[in-house]
Amino acid sequence: MTFCRSAQAIAGLAVAATLLTAGVQAQPKPAVGHFTLANGLEVVVVPDRRAPVVTHMVWYKVGAADEPPGTSGIAHFLEHLMFKGTANNPAGRFSQAVAAVGGQENAFTSQDYTGYFQRVSRDNLKTLMEFEADRMTGLVLANEQVVPELKVVLEEQNQRVANNPRARLSEQIDAALYLNHPYGKPVIGWRHEIEKLNREDALAFYKRFYTPNNAVLVVAGDVTTDEIKTLAEATYGKVGKVAEIGPRRRPQEPAQVAPRRVTLADAQVQQPSLHRAYLVPSSATAKPGESEALEVLSFILGHGTTSRLYRNLVVERELAVSAGGWYNGTALDASQFGVYGSPKPGVTLEQLEGAIDAVIDDVVAKGITPDEVERAKNRLIADAIYAQDSQATMARWYGAALTTGSTVQKVQSWPDRIRAVTADSANAAAKAWLDKRRSVTGYLIKDSSPREEKRS
Amino acid sequence: MTFCRSAQAIAGLAVAATLLTAGVQAQPKPAVGHFTLANGLEVVVVPDRRAPVVTHMVWYKVGAADEPPGTSGIAHFLEHLMFKGTANNPAGRFSQAVAAVGGQENAFTSQDYTGYFQRVSRDNLKTLMEFEADRMTGLVLANEQVVPELKVVLEEQNQRVANNPRARLSEQIDAALYLNHPYGKPVIGWRHEIEKLNREDALAFYKRFYTPNNAVLVVAGDVTTDEIKTLAEATYGKVGKVAEIGPRRRPQEPAQVAPRRVTLADAQVQQPSLHRAYLVPSSATAKPGESEALEVLSFILGHGTTSRLYRNLVVERELAVSAGGWYNGTALDASQFGVYGSPKPGVTLEQLEGAIDAVIDDVVAKGITPDEVERAKNRLIADAIYAQDSQATMARWYGAALTTGSTVQKVQSWPDRIRAVTADSANAAAKAWLDKRRSVTGYLIKDSSPREEKRS
Repeated sequence: MTFCRSAQAIAGLAVAATLLTAGVQAQPKPAVGHFTLANGLEVVVVPDRRAPVVTHMVWYKVGAADEPPGTSGIAHFLEHLMFKGTANNPAGRFSQAVAAVGGQENAFTSQDYTGYFQRVSRDNLKTLMEFEADRMTGLVLANEQVVPELKVVLEEQNQRVANNPRARLSEQIDAALYLNHPYGKPVIGWRHEIEKLNREDALAFYKRFYTPNNAVLVVAGDVTTDEIKTLAEATYGKVGKVAEIGPRRRPQEPAQVAPRRVTLADAQVQQPSLHRAYLVPSSATAKPGESEALEVLSFILGHGTTSRLYRNLVVERELAVSAGGWYNGTALDASQFGVYGSPKPGVTLEQLEGAIDAVIDDVVAKGITPDEVERAKNRLIADAIYAQDSQATMARWYGAALTTGSTVQKVQSWPDRIRAVTADSANAAAKAWLDKRRSVTGYLIKDSSPREEKRS
Repeated sequence: MTFCRSAQAIAGLAVAATLLTAGVQAQPKPAVGHFTLANGLEVVVVPDRRAPVVTHMVWYKVGAADEPPGTSGIAHFLEHLMFKGTANNPAGRFSQAVAAVGGQENAFTSQDYTGYFQRVSRDNLKTLMEFEADRMTGLVLANEQVVPELKVVLEEQNQRVANNPRARLSEQIDAALYLNHPYGKPVIGWRHEIEKLNREDALAFYKRFYTPNNAVLVVAGDVTTDEIKTLAEATYGKVGKVAEIGPRRRPQEPAQVAPRRVTLADAQVQQPSLHRAYLVPSSATAKPGESEALEVLSFILGHGTTSRLYRNLVVERELAVSAGGWYNGTALDASQFGVYGSPKPGVTLEQLEGAIDAVIDDVVAKGITPDEVERAKNRLIADAIYAQDSQATMARWYGAALTTGSTVQKVQSWPDRIRAVTADSANAAAKAWLDKRRSVTGYLIKDSSPREEKRS
């Protein structure tokens, strides 16, 4: 069970999530199927017949940003509790059945979605669907299961965040970046709120959001759309709606008017680093073309050793041991564009920041070149073709897209939309969005004199 | 109609709110009356027989921090709408009645309470109580009244915040200081959310929170407790409960681990300034003696021209034109301790900050002296005696206390609690709470090149 801790954690997926079907044009494949059952369950079928294997995922359109105030972490905690069994299938039986046929399983929670994943041979798909449909609304929770699982989640928070300086800084940056939107809360939750979560919170959240009309089934693999339609009706089709789902409206950000800074000193820091996040549009909130321009811009500015940041800071000026940038377009609401770097010994974070600012200022003032844009677009589209080699990746693209305000059509038009980016549109995006007033700059430094944390 | 924009705005009241009855000991007065009606309305009577005048206030235990997410500003908007009339008393009649007898009226909203105030001659008290009781649950709202009033509120936001650089910075500091608690939202609301408030939001909020069992009536003036008991039963006593009120639980702050900074550049800034807020306990959340120690500490550090900050920065080192500090203890949840200063021409904000840090570091490292503590305590207690000269101030002390988790007894024991502060307890408070990791440092600077604000 994983959770997407922050925008960075899903940035890889963000790039991936809109890449499919570049390959459709390179080499025709069976069409992606897309239909909705009578109970509202949306279904996507991605045929991939290379091996008799299927990837099966159910995505719920609910994540940490949908949590009631004061109960942060409940989306992720419920993800854990979804393995505690139903009236038909006591705790453990589902996972044992997957393991017995040599399958894999996993689950994950982000700000916008919660997903459950299995990979099995195609012969076992129907059994899997019966299990997953059963726990869609049939979860039974006893306190004897809830209380120990809360300890598991707290230990996960301990390992992934409390003892991870980079993750701690990321929590602080998110909290400072979002003045009003719940994306400012960590997906795993604030520890003091996780500690108070209970069975009633989990069941209330489950009953409100886990219903076929709030879910997307994605099956990728050695199947046809017709086969899945039959199987889905026979399994998920029997699950009744338990809740009506209104539009997903979260509190939005006010105009961002003042640059913020945050410094985290942690005794475990080995290497100081700088991380800046800008509040920018997501694919779902952007004007047409704007999110694609940010994808291309982030690639040129920060992706890999040929990026502007890496070349300038690491190669040419030898100020940094690492440097880069990223953009997360996969979000229902306003998302993030990031830059980062770690100074070489003897270089201060302030000096590194000055150098990063100079690279960004240069892009904003003089723009990037058409050549850079061409190379970036070719590489992004080529990567999308390679990525289709993974059945699970393809399933994730659709699942993430359909739970963050995107559509099958938008996933499929991604290569065309990337091709349409020009130097002008990327430069306009840089000018519009790389505005420090919309940013938080975080410093991660070594704390040589740790002090006790205070209560509030 | 006023609203308490931020902690600073109520800092004056904060000091005041816990000061009563120093004078009770200096010069005996009729006891403060305190009782609760059958419908749950709490009543405080503060006899003050110098003139045939009464101050009448109804305080609701609801403020901006109780607003549903996404509807910031609804508490304050409802305060405005409370003047729009009832079935018995159409819009304007109540205010006209107050004006006709030469009375005064006002209303105010803070994070924790919403209050309505009138001052009239004692003969008119009963009429006033009938009016106020009538609108406690009898408000009638038509869209023709709501829509124009929203424009009034937006214009108020425009004047008080959007065109006030200091208020804008304060919004940003609050938002950065509170990572999770709704105190991070402005009392007047985020403008983009105010714009969407409507009649339904206002009525839902009204029906949930405006009920006698969620209110405190405070009458100060030429009255006896018995008289008020009779009048209150004949007026407010007839108002039925419309809602059950549970405990006021807001999302609390996580451990604060990283100092934050925010810089606001505004074209209207005449004089740069620095404002730092620390997250500290309020009177309601502090351990015994701790809030009082913070009162004394803030007085020594920052109150007036004899304070450490003023003497050091303005008088001795001539770095600043102003400098000071404050503490707001009147809050249901974690509150703020602030320091501020404006540099002299030629001094940078960074230099001023270094000097402020040096003063604070000196207090934390070496402590304040018993002499300083004695002087501060004498002055705080003396001020409380003088403050009782104002009937309205006394009414406000009780109203604010009883709507922020305090009690009549705590108000009355305030001088004794202040007397119990020692140099040791004040020094312990400084060490525990003046921790930069719990702080936001804000710079207000002149923007010479204003740019258009961006949407998110």
